[in-house]
Amino acid sequence: MTELDLDEPPAVVTAGASLFAEALTAQAATPRDVQWAPPVPGTEDGLAAVAADPRTGPAAAASVRRLTTARPHWVDVVPAGQALGLGPRDFLHAGPPVSWADAAGPLRGALAGAMVYEGLAGDVAEAGRIAASGGVSLAPCHARGAVGPMAGVVSASMPVSVIEDDEYGGRAYCTLNEGLGKVLRYGAYSAEVIDRLRWLERALAPLLARMLHQRGPVDLGSLIAQALQMGDECHNRNRAATSLLLREITPALLETGAGTGEVAEAFRFISGNDHFFLNLAMPAGKAAADAARDIPGSPVVVAMARNGTEFGIQVSGTGDEWFTAPAPTVEGLFLPGFGPDDANPDIGDSTITETTGIGGFAMAAAPAIVRFVGGEPADAVRNTLQMYEITLAEHPVYQMPVLGFRGTPVGIDATLVVRTGVVPVVNTGIAGREPGVGQVGAGLVTPPMSVFADGVRALARRAAP
Amino acid sequence: MTELDLDEPPAVVTAGASLFAEALTAQAATPRDVQWAPPVPGTEDGLAAVAADPRTGPAAAASVRRLTTARPHWVDVVPAGQALGLGPRDFLHAGPPVSWADAAGPLRGALAGAMVYEGLAGDVAEAGRIAASGGVSLAPCHARGAVGPMAGVVSASMPVSVIEDDEYGGRAYCTLNEGLGKVLRYGAYSAEVIDRLRWLERALAPLLARMLHQRGPVDLGSLIAQALQMGDECHNRNRAATSLLLREITPALLETGAGTGEVAEAFRFISGNDHFFLNLAMPAGKAAADAARDIPGSPVVVAMARNGTEFGIQVSGTGDEWFTAPAPTVEGLFLPGFGPDDANPDIGDSTITETTGIGGFAMAAAPAIVRFVGGEPADAVRNTLQMYEITLAEHPVYQMPVLGFRGTPVGIDATLVVRTGVVPVVNTGIAGREPGVGQVGAGLVTPPMSVFADGVRALARRAAP
Repeated sequence: MTELDLDEPPAVVTAGASLFAEALTAQAATPRDVQWAPPVPGTEDGLAAVAADPRTGPAAAASVRRLTTARPHWVDVVPAGQALGLGPRDFLHAGPPVSWADAAGPLRGALAGAMVYEGLAGDVAEAGRIAASGGVSLAPCHARGAVGPMAGVVSASMPVSVIEDDEYGGRAYCTLNEGLGKVLRYGAYSAEVIDRLRWLERALAPLLARMLHQRGPVDLGSLIAQALQMGDECHNRNRAATSLLLREITPALLETGAGTGEVAEAFRFISGNDHFFLNLAMPAGKAAADAARDIPGSPVVVAMARNGTEFGIQVSGTGDEWFTAPAPTVEGLFLPGFGPDDANPDIGDSTITETTGIGGFAMAAAPAIVRFVGGEPADAVRNTLQMYEITLAEHPVYQMPVLGFRGTPVGIDATLVVRTGVVPVVNTGIAGREPGVGQVGAGLVTPPMSVFADGVRALARRAAP
Repeated sequence: MTELDLDEPPAVVTAGASLFAEALTAQAATPRDVQWAPPVPGTEDGLAAVAADPRTGPAAAASVRRLTTARPHWVDVVPAGQALGLGPRDFLHAGPPVSWADAAGPLRGALAGAMVYEGLAGDVAEAGRIAASGGVSLAPCHARGAVGPMAGVVSASMPVSVIEDDEYGGRAYCTLNEGLGKVLRYGAYSAEVIDRLRWLERALAPLLARMLHQRGPVDLGSLIAQALQMGDECHNRNRAATSLLLREITPALLETGAGTGEVAEAFRFISGNDHFFLNLAMPAGKAAADAARDIPGSPVVVAMARNGTEFGIQVSGTGDEWFTAPAPTVEGLFLPGFGPDDANPDIGDSTITETTGIGGFAMAAAPAIVRFVGGEPADAVRNTLQMYEITLAEHPVYQMPVLGFRGTPVGIDATLVVRTGVVPVVNTGIAGREPGVGQVGAGLVTPPMSVFADGVRALARRAAP
């Protein structure tokens, strides 16, 4: 408590209905409005039960401490079959569980493309028939310690990066980013897409693996922290992080014994795609979020993920249970020739970035991103500032110079989301609705409030009496 | 003109003596203070003559147009002797002209080191005796179309980058950045300094030249524009620009025919020094500023430069005349073990960055720089905003996302400096006062107002009647 400071003019703080603020403004006073709304209806009992559970505070603190002190490192690139125990008919996908029958266009496109890549089908039509008749097994990436951008499809032959958390010992996995344009993750499956997957498997992945064995682990937390000081938020803007990664790995690439032509090809591929680092930022986040999981009583969100049909979250105190709702549409900017009617609803595991205090939560650090996702630079700052209302900490390492080196908002408390009515801000790419189309835009998405309400009620059911 | 908008509360704008603003504040009104001060005493007649000269407006506009539309490209790396017509006893230095007798410690250290490097002396003591007896010829870099950071010494054997302006055809030159620690530009001259100069000459320069012949010119304006969106201001923060440069040149380096070991050595050297790009940002600025020179009647500043003894400027409408005053001291942060008593006064041609709308003028784009030069991120924004008061344009290509993609303030009008009392903000490294020491810190410097007043008076003497 501080004493009232009468050296400054008194200020009026308003909350709730805008009527009060408007009335004050009409009287030439300048109210300072704060976000406030009644809790989401039907969550009052749940919130009360969680608040009354003596485990809640310490469990939340433990989750946040682990989330913010994990130290993810890129240690290897290996085949997904080996790393994730995938058989030839096992396929992982982004988001909560979904069947082929319920899968959205871009997920179907990516699954069919991956089946062709794996030799299970001669073309995507045959792949679709096989999948529809139950010829493949589907599971979420998150169920195997992995994350995948957009459709997020992982099959046995695909190489995956291995991320190790030096602090708590966890591991996380993610495919290599395929680049821009027609790519599997956006649901495209043409011959060039399959050929590129083969090149990743046969050329780039072995070279990167040799490079990592040569130089040792790459500290991803350090790269993310630096990139946030260079205009990235490490979800939809990874230009600085990809640049810094190339500075980290190029000397070692040159010392693998590979020829200059092979290194030049790898360098050009990575440098040709500013999103290359996204597929490292995501598993870095997954490793950190998994360290914060399974703490009884903790209301901290440890996964937000979308499969193109549903948006789902997982909460530390409720284990592997998914809380889901229909995936929302994305508001944003469209590539030439596309519009909202071409857009699939929200898809991808890349919301692991927002779950771990970067991405939309760090947009203040990346004002130039508005040229990609829409809005004005001031909106980017506003989005970040609002996220402090639903998070429990300021990240000790991920700092934003423009906010005076304040740490990014991190550790989403599901009860704060429900109490304040403020949902996490997510920025994202937009996939075409039809299989085979690819990316059609990028923008911001508003997650469904009901998943947080469901999470709080589930936590309440497990609350200590 | 817009009509008075009575939908908003009336505001009071105050200027000049702070008494008025303070009185209003005491009455609970919130005045908006604007910078205003009477012109510098003794400049009233000069200002009037320049204002009355009908050439002034069009000439200023022409200077600024050329300054902001030049298109500097890095085209080659060649020996300075060949590019700049330097004989074995010719040495260039930063800033306005200076004799050995008047040269500051770091400039003497760098000149003596360069003489040893050129084989003119066996050690720095002998070099000093030769220089003191008139055995070498000194000239400013600016007199030969070159610029040099800190001491800025250029000798015949040193390789220089060649920058060509694709728009107006000018050329500018600068040495390769030597790296950090003990380096000639900060006045150090130990064996490691001389050895590194030889490696630059014999290994790095020929490789970079082959790379440029292989790939063609590197567009420096584009790299600067991108780096400003990634937290650089391209004077004391070049981390993004150096990263982007490596992305531009590495594939071509790999296709020069050089071996992987040689490329790795070059890559490590460049990547090991975030200031590598400074020695390209500077001649890019020099090429643009030279395009704006020699326009009769133009009050636009086309060079600001310091030799460690004097701070000097050149103005477009007054040709090659230097207006000088004693070099000021630098306020900033010191490296461990050093303090203000160890600091030489301001030195270097790197103020060509501020002359062309980057560096201190673009600090808003680079809030993290305050960790290097001191102050708070808000100061960085304030510095940039203040520079709009003394500049004639917003740069069409160099934009700052955090200010809503506003162009950087560019085109310093010497008459505006004198009218407003606002001098250009410059951020800079700090050299040790004694020869041989090297860098001791970094900070901000306040240029002497008298050089701008002298420039205005000289312009007035040439004014059309």
